[in-house]
Amino acid sequence: MTGPLGGVDLHAPVDDRWFEDYVPGSVYEFGYSTLSETEIVDFARRYDPQSIHTDAAGSAAGPFGGLIASGVHTIAVCMRLYVDHYISHVASLASPGLDEIRWPHPVRPGDRLRIRVAVAEARTSRSRPDRGLVHSAVEALNQDAAVVLSFTAMNFFARRPSS
Amino acid sequence: MTGPLGGVDLHAPVDDRWFEDYVPGSVYEFGYSTLSETEIVDFARRYDPQSIHTDAAGSAAGPFGGLIASGVHTIAVCMRLYVDHYISHVASLASPGLDEIRWPHPVRPGDRLRIRVAVAEARTSRSRPDRGLVHSAVEALNQDAAVVLSFTAMNFFARRPSS
Repeated sequence: MTGPLGGVDLHAPVDDRWFEDYVPGSVYEFGYSTLSETEIVDFARRYDPQSIHTDAAGSAAGPFGGLIASGVHTIAVCMRLYVDHYISHVASLASPGLDEIRWPHPVRPGDRLRIRVAVAEARTSRSRPDRGLVHSAVEALNQDAAVVLSFTAMNFFARRPSS
Repeated sequence: MTGPLGGVDLHAPVDDRWFEDYVPGSVYEFGYSTLSETEIVDFARRYDPQSIHTDAAGSAAGPFGGLIASGVHTIAVCMRLYVDHYISHVASLASPGLDEIRWPHPVRPGDRLRIRVAVAEARTSRSRPDRGLVHSAVEALNQDAAVVLSFTAMNFFARRPSS
Protein backbone atom coordinates (compact mmCIF):
# COMPACT_ATOMS: atom_id res chain seq x y z
CA MET A 1 0.00 0.00 0.00
CA THR A 2 1.45 3.28 -1.09
CA GLY A 3 -0.69 5.69 0.88
CA PRO A 4 -2.18 8.99 -0.30
CA LEU A 5 -2.44 9.28 -4.07
CA GLY A 6 -1.89 12.40 -6.12
CA GLY A 7 0.09 13.95 -3.29
CA VAL A 8 -3.05 15.10 -1.49
CA ASP A 9 -3.48 14.03 2.12
CA LEU A 10 -5.26 15.37 5.15
CA HIS A 11 -3.24 18.17 6.70
CA ALA A 12 -3.03 16.37 10.04
CA PRO A 13 -1.15 13.06 10.22
CA VAL A 14 -3.13 10.00 11.31
CA ASP A 15 -1.57 10.04 14.77
CA ASP A 16 -2.55 13.67 15.42
CA ARG A 17 -5.84 13.86 13.55
CA TRP A 18 -9.06 14.96 15.25
CA PHE A 19 -12.68 15.74 14.46
CA GLU A 20 -11.79 19.27 13.30
CA ASP A 21 -9.44 17.87 10.64
CA TYR A 22 -12.32 16.31 8.67
CA VAL A 23 -13.45 19.26 6.56
CA PRO A 24 -16.62 18.78 4.47
CA GLY A 25 -15.88 19.05 0.77
CA SER A 26 -12.37 17.63 1.04
CA VAL A 27 -11.61 14.65 -1.21
CA TYR A 28 -8.71 12.21 -0.82
CA GLU A 29 -7.54 9.06 -2.55
CA PHE A 30 -5.60 6.22 -0.96
CA GLY A 31 -4.19 3.02 -2.38
CA TYR A 32 -3.43 0.46 -3.42
CA SER A 33 -4.71 -2.98 -2.61
CA THR A 34 -4.60 -5.86 -5.08
CA LEU A 35 -6.76 -8.98 -4.76
CA SER A 36 -5.28 -12.28 -5.91
CA GLU A 37 -7.36 -15.27 -6.96
CA THR A 38 -6.09 -17.18 -3.91
CA GLU A 39 -7.19 -14.44 -1.54
CA ILE A 40 -10.59 -14.18 -3.21
CA VAL A 41 -11.20 -17.92 -2.97
CA ASP A 42 -9.87 -18.24 0.60
CA PHE A 43 -12.01 -15.40 1.90
CA ALA A 44 -15.11 -16.72 0.15
CA ARG A 45 -14.63 -20.28 1.40
CA ARG A 46 -14.66 -18.95 4.93
CA TYR A 47 -17.33 -16.26 4.74
CA ASP A 48 -19.28 -16.32 1.46
CA PRO A 49 -19.01 -19.76 -0.17
CA GLN A 50 -20.99 -19.12 -3.34
CA SER A 51 -19.50 -20.78 -6.41
CA ILE A 52 -19.12 -17.47 -8.23
CA HIS A 53 -16.53 -16.59 -5.54
CA THR A 54 -14.91 -20.00 -5.01
CA ASP A 55 -15.02 -21.95 -8.29
CA ALA A 56 -12.80 -20.40 -10.96
CA ALA A 57 -13.56 -23.05 -13.57
CA GLY A 58 -17.30 -23.22 -12.98
CA SER A 59 -17.74 -19.46 -12.82
CA ALA A 60 -16.25 -19.04 -16.31
CA ALA A 61 -19.62 -20.07 -17.77
CA GLY A 62 -21.55 -17.99 -15.21
CA PRO A 63 -23.13 -14.54 -15.47
CA PHE A 64 -19.85 -12.69 -14.87
CA GLY A 65 -17.68 -14.84 -17.15
CA GLY A 66 -15.28 -15.74 -14.36
CA LEU A 67 -14.50 -15.57 -10.69
CA ILE A 68 -15.48 -12.41 -8.83
CA ALA A 69 -14.69 -11.35 -5.27
CA SER A 70 -17.29 -11.58 -2.54
CA GLY A 71 -18.78 -8.16 -1.96
CA VAL A 72 -17.94 -8.50 1.72
CA HIS A 73 -14.32 -9.15 0.78
CA THR A 74 -14.29 -5.96 -1.27
CA ILE A 75 -15.64 -4.07 1.75
CA ALA A 76 -12.93 -5.62 3.95
CA VAL A 77 -10.07 -4.75 1.58
CA CYS A 78 -11.30 -1.17 1.24
CA MET A 79 -11.81 -0.88 5.00
CA ARG A 80 -8.10 -1.64 5.36
CA LEU A 81 -7.20 1.33 3.14
CA TYR A 82 -9.72 3.49 5.02
CA VAL A 83 -8.31 2.51 8.42
CA ASP A 84 -4.66 2.80 7.42
CA HIS A 85 -4.90 6.20 5.77
CA TYR A 86 -8.07 8.10 6.63
CA ILE A 87 -9.26 7.22 10.11
CA SER A 88 -7.51 8.99 12.96
CA HIS A 89 -5.30 6.61 14.91
CA VAL A 90 -5.84 8.59 18.12
CA ALA A 91 -9.36 10.06 17.97
CA SER A 92 -11.52 7.35 16.43
CA LEU A 93 -14.24 6.42 18.89
CA ALA A 94 -16.79 4.18 17.22
CA SER A 95 -18.78 3.75 14.08
CA PRO A 96 -22.54 3.50 14.31
CA GLY A 97 -22.76 2.01 10.83
CA LEU A 98 -22.53 2.19 7.06
CA ASP A 99 -25.19 3.27 4.59
CA GLU A 100 -26.00 2.47 0.98
CA ILE A 101 -23.40 -0.14 0.20
CA ARG A 102 -23.43 -0.76 -3.56
CA TRP A 103 -21.34 -3.03 -5.79
CA PRO A 104 -21.84 -1.50 -9.25
CA HIS A 105 -19.03 -3.43 -10.95
CA PRO A 106 -17.44 -6.82 -10.16
CA VAL A 107 -13.94 -7.21 -8.67
CA ARG A 108 -11.82 -9.81 -10.46
CA PRO A 109 -8.52 -11.50 -9.57
CA GLY A 110 -5.61 -9.11 -10.10
CA ASP A 111 -7.69 -5.97 -9.78
CA ARG A 112 -5.82 -3.13 -8.11
CA LEU A 113 -8.13 -1.02 -5.96
CA ARG A 114 -7.89 2.46 -4.54
CA ILE A 115 -10.41 4.37 -2.46
CA ARG A 116 -11.69 7.88 -2.90
CA VAL A 117 -13.08 9.45 0.25
CA ALA A 118 -15.07 12.67 0.38
CA VAL A 119 -15.89 14.28 3.72
CA ALA A 120 -19.65 14.73 3.31
CA GLU A 121 -20.72 16.09 6.67
CA ALA A 122 -19.18 16.83 10.06
CA ARG A 123 -21.11 17.95 13.11
CA THR A 124 -20.36 18.05 16.78
CA SER A 125 -22.47 15.98 19.14
CA ARG A 126 -25.03 17.89 21.22
CA SER A 127 -25.19 15.30 23.97
CA ARG A 128 -21.42 14.70 24.09
CA PRO A 129 -19.59 17.88 23.11
CA ASP A 130 -16.18 16.19 23.31
CA ARG A 131 -16.82 14.48 19.96
CA GLY A 132 -18.33 14.83 16.52
CA LEU A 133 -19.88 12.62 13.87
CA VAL A 134 -18.35 12.56 10.36
CA HIS A 135 -20.14 11.19 7.31
CA SER A 136 -17.73 10.14 4.57
CA ALA A 137 -18.68 9.11 1.04
CA VAL A 138 -16.36 6.28 0.06
CA GLU A 139 -15.83 4.86 -3.42
CA ALA A 140 -13.47 2.09 -4.45
CA LEU A 141 -12.14 2.18 -8.00
CA ASN A 142 -10.27 -0.42 -9.99
CA GLN A 143 -7.32 0.12 -12.35
CA ASP A 144 -9.74 1.18 -15.11
CA ALA A 145 -11.40 3.77 -12.85
CA ALA A 146 -14.60 1.74 -12.66
CA VAL A 147 -16.36 2.12 -9.32
CA VAL A 148 -16.57 -1.35 -7.75
CA LEU A 149 -17.93 -0.32 -4.34
CA SER A 150 -19.52 2.71 -2.76
CA PHE A 151 -20.90 3.43 0.68
CA THR A 152 -21.32 6.16 3.27
CA ALA A 153 -19.40 5.65 6.50
CA MET A 154 -20.19 7.23 9.85
CA ASN A 155 -17.45 7.73 12.42
CA PHE A 156 -17.30 9.46 15.77
CA PHE A 157 -14.04 11.32 16.37
CA ALA A 158 -12.85 13.08 19.50
CA ARG A 159 -12.41 16.84 19.19
CA ARG A 160 -8.90 18.22 19.32
CA PRO A 161 -7.90 18.72 22.96
CA SER A 162 -7.74 22.45 23.70
CA SER A 163 -4.48 22.33 25.55
CA MET B 1 -23.42 -24.33 12.40
CA THR B 2 -26.66 -26.05 13.22
CA GLY B 3 -28.93 -24.54 10.59
CA PRO B 4 -32.53 -23.36 11.02
CA LEU B 5 -33.46 -22.58 14.61
CA GLY B 6 -36.81 -23.23 16.25
CA GLY B 7 -37.64 -25.80 13.58
CA VAL B 8 -38.82 -23.13 11.15
CA ASP B 9 -37.21 -23.11 7.71
CA LEU B 10 -38.21 -21.99 4.25
CA HIS B 11 -40.49 -24.55 2.67
CA ALA B 12 -38.15 -25.02 -0.29
CA PRO B 13 -34.67 -26.46 0.34
CA VAL B 14 -31.68 -24.28 -0.61
CA ASP B 15 -30.99 -26.33 -3.72
CA ASP B 16 -34.55 -25.94 -5.06
CA ARG B 17 -35.39 -22.47 -3.79
CA TRP B 18 -36.54 -19.71 -6.17
CA PHE B 19 -37.83 -16.15 -6.11
CA GLU B 20 -41.37 -17.33 -5.35
CA ASP B 21 -40.19 -19.03 -2.16
CA TYR B 22 -39.30 -15.73 -0.49
CA VAL B 23 -42.67 -14.70 0.95
CA PRO B 24 -42.88 -11.24 2.55
CA GLY B 25 -43.68 -11.43 6.24
CA SER B 26 -41.86 -14.73 6.77
CA VAL B 27 -39.22 -14.73 9.51
CA TYR B 28 -36.47 -17.32 9.98
CA GLU B 29 -33.53 -17.79 12.32
CA PHE B 30 -30.28 -19.55 11.50
CA GLY B 31 -27.22 -20.32 13.57
CA TYR B 32 -24.80 -20.57 15.10
CA SER B 33 -21.44 -18.97 14.62
CA THR B 34 -19.01 -18.34 17.46
CA LEU B 35 -16.14 -15.85 17.24
CA SER B 36 -12.93 -16.70 19.08
CA GLU B 37 -10.39 -14.11 20.20
CA THR B 38 -7.89 -15.54 17.73
CA GLU B 39 -10.29 -15.18 14.82
CA ILE B 40 -11.19 -11.64 15.85
CA VAL B 41 -7.56 -10.58 16.06
CA ASP B 42 -6.50 -12.38 12.86
CA PHE B 43 -9.31 -10.84 10.80
CA ALA B 44 -8.62 -7.37 12.19
CA ARG B 45 -4.87 -7.55 11.60
CA ARG B 46 -5.60 -8.21 7.95
CA TYR B 47 -8.55 -5.91 7.29
CA ASP B 48 -9.25 -3.52 10.16
CA PRO B 49 -6.13 -3.08 12.31
CA GLN B 50 -7.49 -0.77 14.97
CA SER B 51 -6.20 -1.55 18.45
CA ILE B 52 -9.71 -2.09 19.81
CA HIS B 53 -9.85 -5.15 17.50
CA THR B 54 -6.24 -6.36 17.75
CA ASP B 55 -4.88 -5.51 21.21
CA ALA B 56 -6.62 -7.50 23.96
CA ALA B 57 -4.53 -6.03 26.77
CA GLY B 58 -4.67 -2.42 25.58
CA SER B 59 -8.39 -2.52 24.82
CA ALA B 60 -9.21 -3.52 28.41
CA ALA B 61 -8.81 0.12 29.43
CA GLY B 62 -10.62 1.36 26.32
CA PRO B 63 -14.22 2.51 25.79
CA PHE B 64 -15.57 -1.05 25.48
CA GLY B 65 -13.62 -2.56 28.37
CA GLY B 66 -12.02 -5.20 26.18
CA LEU B 67 -11.48 -6.51 22.70
CA ILE B 68 -14.39 -6.25 20.26
CA ALA B 69 -14.74 -7.68 16.76
CA SER B 70 -14.35 -5.51 13.69
CA GLY B 71 -17.77 -4.59 12.39
CA VAL B 72 -16.74 -5.90 8.99
CA HIS B 73 -15.86 -9.22 10.61
CA THR B 74 -19.33 -9.38 12.15
CA ILE B 75 -20.83 -8.75 8.71
CA ALA B 76 -18.66 -11.53 7.23
CA VAL B 77 -19.59 -14.08 9.88
CA CYS B 78 -23.29 -13.32 9.49
CA MET B 79 -23.00 -13.41 5.69
CA ARG B 80 -21.79 -17.00 6.08
CA LEU B 81 -24.98 -17.95 7.94
CA TYR B 82 -27.05 -16.04 5.37
CA VAL B 83 -25.38 -17.80 2.44
CA ASP B 84 -25.44 -21.26 3.99
CA HIS B 85 -29.07 -21.23 5.05
CA TYR B 86 -31.14 -18.50 3.40
CA ILE B 87 -29.82 -17.72 -0.06
CA SER B 88 -30.90 -20.10 -2.79
CA HIS B 89 -27.99 -22.24 -3.98
CA VAL B 90 -29.47 -22.45 -7.49
CA ALA B 91 -31.33 -19.18 -8.15
CA SER B 92 -29.14 -16.47 -6.61
CA LEU B 93 -28.11 -14.04 -9.33
CA ALA B 94 -26.47 -11.01 -7.79
CA SER B 95 -26.78 -8.52 -5.00
CA PRO B 96 -26.92 -4.83 -5.82
CA GLY B 97 -26.06 -3.91 -2.24
CA LEU B 98 -26.83 -3.60 1.45
CA ASP B 99 -28.59 -0.77 3.26
CA GLU B 100 -28.48 0.65 6.77
CA ILE B 101 -25.76 -1.42 8.34
CA ARG B 102 -25.79 -0.77 12.10
CA TRP B 103 -23.70 -2.19 14.94
CA PRO B 104 -25.82 -1.40 18.02
CA HIS B 105 -23.91 -3.64 20.43
CA PRO B 106 -20.28 -4.89 20.43
CA VAL B 107 -19.29 -8.47 19.60
CA ARG B 108 -16.81 -9.95 22.08
CA PRO B 109 -14.66 -13.08 22.00
CA GLY B 110 -16.75 -16.17 22.65
CA ASP B 111 -20.03 -14.60 21.54
CA ARG B 112 -22.34 -17.07 19.81
CA LEU B 113 -24.29 -15.39 17.01
CA ARG B 114 -27.44 -16.29 15.16
CA ILE B 115 -29.22 -14.37 12.44
CA ARG B 116 -32.90 -13.52 12.16
CA VAL B 117 -34.05 -12.84 8.60
CA ALA B 118 -37.41 -11.33 7.68
CA VAL B 119 -38.51 -11.23 4.05
CA ALA B 120 -39.43 -7.55 3.76
CA GLU B 121 -40.32 -7.16 0.09
CA ALA B 122 -40.32 -9.29 -3.06
CA ARG B 123 -41.12 -7.98 -6.52
CA THR B 124 -40.53 -9.27 -9.99
CA SER B 125 -38.34 -7.28 -12.33
CA ARG B 126 -40.14 -5.34 -15.07
CA SER B 127 -37.17 -5.24 -17.40
CA ARG B 128 -36.15 -8.88 -16.80
CA PRO B 129 -39.24 -10.95 -16.01
CA ASP B 130 -37.16 -14.10 -15.38
CA ARG B 131 -36.12 -12.75 -11.98
CA GLY B 132 -37.21 -10.81 -8.93
CA LEU B 133 -35.65 -8.60 -6.27
CA VAL B 134 -36.00 -9.56 -2.61
CA HIS B 135 -35.35 -7.18 0.30
CA SER B 136 -34.52 -9.00 3.52
CA ALA B 137 -34.20 -7.42 6.96
CA VAL B 138 -31.33 -9.16 8.71
CA GLU B 139 -30.45 -8.98 12.39
CA ALA B 140 -27.67 -10.79 14.20
CA LEU B 141 -28.20 -11.58 17.87
CA ASN B 142 -25.78 -12.78 20.50
CA GLN B 143 -26.38 -15.40 23.20
CA ASP B 144 -28.13 -12.76 25.35
CA ALA B 145 -30.48 -11.81 22.49
CA ALA B 146 -28.80 -8.43 22.07
CA VAL B 147 -28.81 -7.24 18.46
CA VAL B 148 -25.17 -6.80 17.42
CA LEU B 149 -25.76 -6.11 13.70
CA SER B 150 -28.64 -5.19 11.46
CA PHE B 151 -28.93 -4.43 7.76
CA THR B 152 -31.22 -4.76 4.78
CA ALA B 153 -29.98 -7.05 2.01
CA MET B 154 -31.07 -6.98 -1.62
CA ASN B 155 -30.82 -10.12 -3.75
CA PHE B 156 -31.95 -10.97 -7.24
CA PHE B 157 -33.32 -14.51 -7.56
CA ALA B 158 -34.40 -16.37 -10.67
CA ARG B 159 -38.09 -17.24 -10.84
CA ARG B 160 -39.02 -20.89 -10.59
CA PRO B 161 -38.81 -22.44 -14.06
CA SER B 162 -42.29 -23.27 -15.34
CA SER B 163 -41.46 -26.73 -16.54
